[in-house]
Amino acid sequence: MTEYIPPSSPDMFAPRYSGLATFMRTPVASSLADVDIGLLGIPYDGALTNRPGARHGPREVRNQSSLMRAINHATRVNPYELCRIADVGDVPFDSVFDIEATHKNITDFVAQMVARNVIPLSCGGDHSVSLPILRAVAHEPVALIHIDAHTDTWDSFQGSKFNHGAPFRRAHEEGLIDPKKTVQIGIRGAQNMSEGWDYSEQAGMRVMFIEEVQERGISAIVEEARTVVGEGPVYLSFDIDSIDPAFAPGTGTPEVAGLTTAEAMALIRGFRGLNYVGADVVEVSPPFDVGGMTALAGATVMYELLCVLAEARSTR
Amino acid sequence: MTEYIPPSSPDMFAPRYSGLATFMRTPVASSLADVDIGLLGIPYDGALTNRPGARHGPREVRNQSSLMRAINHATRVNPYELCRIADVGDVPFDSVFDIEATHKNITDFVAQMVARNVIPLSCGGDHSVSLPILRAVAHEPVALIHIDAHTDTWDSFQGSKFNHGAPFRRAHEEGLIDPKKTVQIGIRGAQNMSEGWDYSEQAGMRVMFIEEVQERGISAIVEEARTVVGEGPVYLSFDIDSIDPAFAPGTGTPEVAGLTTAEAMALIRGFRGLNYVGADVVEVSPPFDVGGMTALAGATVMYELLCVLAEARSTR
Amino acid sequence: MTEYIPPSSPDMFAPRYSGLATFMRTPVASSLADVDIGLLGIPYDGALTNRPGARHGPREVRNQSSLMRAINHATRVNPYELCRIADVGDVPFDSVFDIEATHKNITDFVAQMVARNVIPLSCGGDHSVSLPILRAVAHEPVALIHIDAHTDTWDSFQGSKFNHGAPFRRAHEEGLIDPKKTVQIGIRGAQNMSEGWDYSEQAGMRVMFIEEVQERGISAIVEEARTVVGEGPVYLSFDIDSIDPAFAPGTGTPEVAGLTTAEAMALIRGFRGLNYVGADVVEVSPPFDVGGMTALAGATVMYELLCVLAEARSTR
Amino acid sequence: MTEYIPPSSPDMFAPRYSGLATFMRTPVASSLADVDIGLLGIPYDGALTNRPGARHGPREVRNQSSLMRAINHATRVNPYELCRIADVGDVPFDSVFDIEATHKNITDFVAQMVARNVIPLSCGGDHSVSLPILRAVAHEPVALIHIDAHTDTWDSFQGSKFNHGAPFRRAHEEGLIDPKKTVQIGIRGAQNMSEGWDYSEQAGMRVMFIEEVQERGISAIVEEARTVVGEGPVYLSFDIDSIDPAFAPGTGTPEVAGLTTAEAMALIRGFRGLNYVGADVVEVSPPFDVGGMTALAGATVMYELLCVLAEARSTR
Amino acid sequence: MTEYIPPSSPDMFAPRYSGLATFMRTPVASSLADVDIGLLGIPYDGALTNRPGARHGPREVRNQSSLMRAINHATRVNPYELCRIADVGDVPFDSVFDIEATHKNITDFVAQMVARNVIPLSCGGDHSVSLPILRAVAHEPVALIHIDAHTDTWDSFQGSKFNHGAPFRRAHEEGLIDPKKTVQIGIRGAQNMSEGWDYSEQAGMRVMFIEEVQERGISAIVEEARTVVGEGPVYLSFDIDSIDPAFAPGTGTPEVAGLTTAEAMALIRGFRGLNYVGADVVEVSPPFDVGGMTALAGATVMYELLCVLAEARSTR
Amino acid sequence: MTEYIPPSSPDMFAPRYSGLATFMRTPVASSLADVDIGLLGIPYDGALTNRPGARHGPREVRNQSSLMRAINHATRVNPYELCRIADVGDVPFDSVFDIEATHKNITDFVAQMVARNVIPLSCGGDHSVSLPILRAVAHEPVALIHIDAHTDTWDSFQGSKFNHGAPFRRAHEEGLIDPKKTVQIGIRGAQNMSEGWDYSEQAGMRVMFIEEVQERGISAIVEEARTVVGEGPVYLSFDIDSIDPAFAPGTGTPEVAGLTTAEAMALIRGFRGLNYVGADVVEVSPPFDVGGMTALAGATVMYELLCVLAEARSTR
Repeated sequence: MTEYIPPSSPDMFAPRYSGLATFMRTPVASSLADVDIGLLGIPYDGALTNRPGARHGPREVRNQSSLMRAINHATRVNPYELCRIADVGDVPFDSVFDIEATHKNITDFVAQMVARNVIPLSCGGDHSVSLPILRAVAHEPVALIHIDAHTDTWDSFQGSKFNHGAPFRRAHEEGLIDPKKTVQIGIRGAQNMSEGWDYSEQAGMRVMFIEEVQERGISAIVEEARTVVGEGPVYLSFDIDSIDPAFAPGTGTPEVAGLTTAEAMALIRGFRGLNYVGADVVEVSPPFDVGGMTALAGATVMYELLCVLAEARSTR
Repeated sequence: MTEYIPPSSPDMFAPRYSGLATFMRTPVASSLADVDIGLLGIPYDGALTNRPGARHGPREVRNQSSLMRAINHATRVNPYELCRIADVGDVPFDSVFDIEATHKNITDFVAQMVARNVIPLSCGGDHSVSLPILRAVAHEPVALIHIDAHTDTWDSFQGSKFNHGAPFRRAHEEGLIDPKKTVQIGIRGAQNMSEGWDYSEQAGMRVMFIEEVQERGISAIVEEARTVVGEGPVYLSFDIDSIDPAFAPGTGTPEVAGLTTAEAMALIRGFRGLNYVGADVVEVSPPFDVGGMTALAGATVMYELLCVLAEARSTR
Repeated sequence: MTEYIPPSSPDMFAPRYSGLATFMRTPVASSLADVDIGLLGIPYDGALTNRPGARHGPREVRNQSSLMRAINHATRVNPYELCRIADVGDVPFDSVFDIEATHKNITDFVAQMVARNVIPLSCGGDHSVSLPILRAVAHEPVALIHIDAHTDTWDSFQGSKFNHGAPFRRAHEEGLIDPKKTVQIGIRGAQNMSEGWDYSEQAGMRVMFIEEVQERGISAIVEEARTVVGEGPVYLSFDIDSIDPAFAPGTGTPEVAGLTTAEAMALIRGFRGLNYVGADVVEVSPPFDVGGMTALAGATVMYELLCVLAEARSTR
Repeated sequence: MTEYIPPSSPDMFAPRYSGLATFMRTPVASSLADVDIGLLGIPYDGALTNRPGARHGPREVRNQSSLMRAINHATRVNPYELCRIADVGDVPFDSVFDIEATHKNITDFVAQMVARNVIPLSCGGDHSVSLPILRAVAHEPVALIHIDAHTDTWDSFQGSKFNHGAPFRRAHEEGLIDPKKTVQIGIRGAQNMSEGWDYSEQAGMRVMFIEEVQERGISAIVEEARTVVGEGPVYLSFDIDSIDPAFAPGTGTPEVAGLTTAEAMALIRGFRGLNYVGADVVEVSPPFDVGGMTALAGATVMYELLCVLAEARSTR
Repeated sequence: MTEYIPPSSPDMFAPRYSGLATFMRTPVASSLADVDIGLLGIPYDGALTNRPGARHGPREVRNQSSLMRAINHATRVNPYELCRIADVGDVPFDSVFDIEATHKNITDFVAQMVARNVIPLSCGGDHSVSLPILRAVAHEPVALIHIDAHTDTWDSFQGSKFNHGAPFRRAHEEGLIDPKKTVQIGIRGAQNMSEGWDYSEQAGMRVMFIEEVQERGISAIVEEARTVVGEGPVYLSFDIDSIDPAFAPGTGTPEVAGLTTAEAMALIRGFRGLNYVGADVVEVSPPFDVGGMTALAGATVMYELLCVLAEARSTR
Repeated sequence: MTEYIPPSSPDMFAPRYSGLATFMRTPVASSLADVDIGLLGIPYDGALTNRPGARHGPREVRNQSSLMRAINHATRVNPYELCRIADVGDVPFDSVFDIEATHKNITDFVAQMVARNVIPLSCGGDHSVSLPILRAVAHEPVALIHIDAHTDTWDSFQGSKFNHGAPFRRAHEEGLIDPKKTVQIGIRGAQNMSEGWDYSEQAGMRVMFIEEVQERGISAIVEEARTVVGEGPVYLSFDIDSIDPAFAPGTGTPEVAGLTTAEAMALIRGFRGLNYVGADVVEVSPPFDVGGMTALAGATVMYELLCVLAEARSTR
């Protein structure tokens, strides 16, 4: 008779539709002590200004991430051989109605991880969550690779300066990121004001609109971006709306004519070997998804990020 | 700074979309020792003969079951005050291509629970899984409350006598159920042969077609069914296709004109106070579901079953 | 080695998802000579005034009708033992842009069936198609059982007096139906003018609004309706929008608070033993369907109609 | 050559899929001066605690409401002959991130209507919006007909006492409603605490759980409710989650086994002839809807409410 | 207390899900006097021969167009600074069952715009509507940029020579377009007859099949097309089925392997600075859409067209 | 009066939504005698290890294939002028629960076709079906063009060595394919073991990962692949999951960043003029499809394969 196996230790060879849906079918962490990279969910979308639903992102990305496996076919990296990786759960919130209180919960949770030398790879949630994460991981101004349809350097909108279109403006103001080491890739979509685009450029960030990306190709983009970012600590923030809505329809602020998933994969793989302090995937909105496509894309982005984080972590 | 809380101990007051999706947001069992009622998934649909997908049932019922809460508004039962309840995970399989081997895995897993005095409340999976569960829980012929559109007492079909239309014929043959204490409620849908209907009646089971249920009303049905079932050990098997496809479209063999969810709730609440050895909810097929309706109905049926099982368990 | 079996002779015991999708898995008729009841599709929706898509009705009702089987669980009628039943295909059209030309194609096709003593059971298509069918089957004013949310006795609208809200006004004018032997069941939904309601009542039709149906119950409705209809030739027209949108969302002019499918089944079974000249199911609009629910409801209605038609045909 | 007609004056006889989507195809109000009943949208869901999306409610209810027409088939009331009815647009917000500021915007907007003797019939939005509406319409404690799955008399949750589960507790505290003249109909669904149920009953509200409604029938419920409510000013709040998810799946906190739409229609029609100060339909969440069913149900509820409000307004 | 603002003057900074759904959130025109570019809907699909639903196109493109904003990120054009732009509503129809009568209504409506010097940017509707628009805008044979999967120069089909596969053959015959200044881009999909392809080429139109577009790239295509089109008056007709079904599934006659939305955007931007007399986007069929993707693509195409039309109009 | 036309002889000029859904609207074969290319369905998915539903593939590919037409726009091949093509139905099964028995049924059915010189073009079904087809068509080791995300040369998994990830390993072992003449195109997706990748390469197959395909371009890939394959008999197996999930979401094991449909079309057209013994399209899973996109892609792939097979067959 088979021995009872607690479901918090999933088996990667079991059928993918079986078992508890943890991120990538990693085990549930019982403490942060034996974890190198912690996969966490941030089910919060209270700072967005358009179509909601990103609060459901971690749940559904976990669900689809059961389709992920171990060995990267392109790089042959197996992150599970390089690091101890676990699902550390979702950030708990004291109040979901107060952006700043929520942000404090996020910073506190990630700070615990950082204190134990656990690299955070988080799944949002709206893009506002990158700010409180940066507050926890950036002990000095860090370099930023920001893949997105929007620069997210707008100012106060609809009543809050911490809305999901503002995190990197706030991060700049707070000295969390170094604008000279910041690259924003995939930017597109009409705007009512050019404010955000202007802010990024005036602050010294390297803004790569989608047309530039498509014309020059991923290799050239990667090469230049690596030069911008440099050798120091770097954070990577991936907004799923950087990807074209045909590949990732389930997001709050879709903009047509974006990255293909192939381009997104190539971008992330291009950023191997950097000195990561953390990464996130945000703005997956399951209620607007069709057929789980966006959650699957989000899970795959997260897996690719895991591979580059694992390489980084394993060489420390 | 907040203390790290492992996600396997979910908080019922946290936002419903947050945290790992365990059944009813119950904690993950680390052993079977401190559990009175174990919620388990059986992600297997290899014995069905029509539209597939029930293998995804446990995953999505877990997902939607986060919408469940503690106190039953109709009976005021709070199962969590009566019993220790946990998610014990999914049955692990050696082979998914061999019905009988799979059934053996199920019997073995449930037998472990029974051996530790844990009542199994399972979520399938196709209806074939009731047979191996009965093999584990029925130490003598038990009474059976079977709520379904089909009698599931057909014989071999499409090459197997263990297909999902046959479990209760096999259970009868194996002496696992007492046909005189068996009631089948909600039967309907045309058939190519009357074989299954005839078998049930000839074996002495009380077959209540849906028209009888609708004409006499739930109270009368419950009253008679309780008389049939009696005071001894009883198993309850709930096929989601007993419910009308308007309320539960996501199932393999839908038949229009079924039970409403209100009738289903009333049925289960009518069966309080019996001597349960276990129960199951089967045939939720998420790929055919729309808007998660069927998984929500399945989760609610499972919650109502949990309430009656908890009352039964707590009085032992 | 197995012999080649042409797919136009489907096997009712084969898996339901296999084979060509003919109505009810009946064989394709190679001629009209050996057919008692002909199942035909009328893929036309050029006369509707609201949401389109009923042109796709026959295709998807055929698709879902593979879920039907032989023996009616409630009446124990097996239509295939009583009659020779075949799928006779779809009405071919000369022009899809001219309502009257299309109607002529329909009349011609059905007239061929009538000439060979084949009872037509058709699947629309918008409700305008009932008029040209009646032109073929009604050699004298026939009785009419009309189950619908709308009386369809309105006059010219949006430029045509043959629009899908007018067939029974035209049928009355043309002497195809006897208004004193006409019953309209399930009527509901606000209207901009009371014209249609008034016409039906002034013509002497018995109009049963849904509230009356729900208050008196199906048995009482059936009893009165049978008295209205009498012993002579009768045609039954079933608009899927008579059924509540929760059970049948895929239709062009949905009206909430309609019949349940259980009520619809009970109505049709209540009309056993009449002297049918034909029947139709109309207004299934697959593009507005969800999860195939409406096509399944339409297929089941068609199966139940087949049972009553088979009883009628077999006693001639 | 046809004269140019501005699209803000839609034509109820035009095809239903054409024209701007105003509520019920009523004209857009250019001022509040010539309006008796104002249909308004409140696209706000910042106070909910579960699945989001009600912010999209007004948009999609307007969209589906094009299927509505003028004359009620059951009561033969034509509200457009009784009153001047217009779409007065959506409440504009200063900030969407601050519940109390948003609520003030709502109160201000509705107060303008009240000041001009315009009865508000609003479409939410989450249920928190009923509180600021009551602040504008209740010059004394009003009677309340509250149709819902939840009593919404819970206290502070997830950080705000103005969350969508609390409006009627706050309204009671603020003296906006008379608990002795308050009836809550359709209550169901398990709860983690009995607090809300207890509060309602202790405050003297008449709480009718769904089982009571189903057992006694709508007529008896209406009769008693009318006695509770009395002759004075009354407000009616209709939460779409009172309706069963099979009929209205698109809502944030679904509970199975609810009202049918037929029962909902009968309830509203049962409340004709009361002295209404306003009404609302809330919690329609289009991202969770399937096939527009819930928005259609919401639009129909709104039309039925319009009929009873028009009768009330026309007799003043 | 805030002043009442009629909803026909929407605010582009308000939340995108709020307010009446006008095209691009432009104000509703009360007359044609103060309008430079009029956005109009043509909710007609009575001339199509395949999957219906384009009648719902204007409604849903309006709905999704709320996601559009002012400043084009690629060209930095803000059309609202260049021109007065308004939603002028939908073409009203006398009869929806007569293609030619409907076409006359369209010509009349657009002719009113032309008479007042308003450039029409219309949203269909099936592609037959381009013919009656051309009758209103083409005072001499105009150049034509036609982006589509089909040449739409077929002849009579299914009974009408004005069907949606024929508009540009008829336009050629009527002298509305100059075939030597006509370019057709994106053509693909098998055909039962080569008639349409042959007609276009024999008439002297420049037909660019999709393979040519993909091999040569958008820049080369644009360059040649501009040479073909020349300096004179030009009309641009954009069939959404030119775009690949992965990006725009909701259309009547989908053909795989089409333009990406990025290519479509680049094409339109490549056609800046021409002398436009009007433009259209056609064949968006919401009932076949998934997740609003196609309506979003259609709205974005319409916005890009608005930018090029505004530049053209502002230089007159 | 029109003559009765049996629906098993569909008309390619009839409306696409009309008639029985046969593959490509080809006639139903009454025998195999007069057929050059037989289109067959294999509705079996009992050998898959992940998300089910491919059993519904033939049904829905037939359904969407009505959108196909005769003349290939790119190659101008009209397969119906070159060959006699018919729908020969679905493989009948003795048992659906036994992989090897099912495989035997497939081999037997295809062997009948081969015996009558009918080239099989089949539609699956899971990928395991390629093995029994090869057993029927490969009288010597044949060349193989295998387009897929996975090499399908893994070994036993979840209890069977005939699972859908193993067919080409088994085919190699059985001497059905020549590994030196085998090319696998589009491979991608992480794996838990590198076993399958390694096996293919060690066996001498030419494995082209997706990155290579995207970098070198289709022309270069085709050129090399043709060299590998050579002049002898060749079989082409097309797994729909080779195509990106944005274009073909409905499949059991989706992997992002795959082929576009344009690339897939170009690949197949690149393989004109080879000496085909058969071809298949597999792993279309309708329950996971959205909007019929995948079935449409599958039908178009099947049409393109038909064109190359027809050229091959017609030159024999």
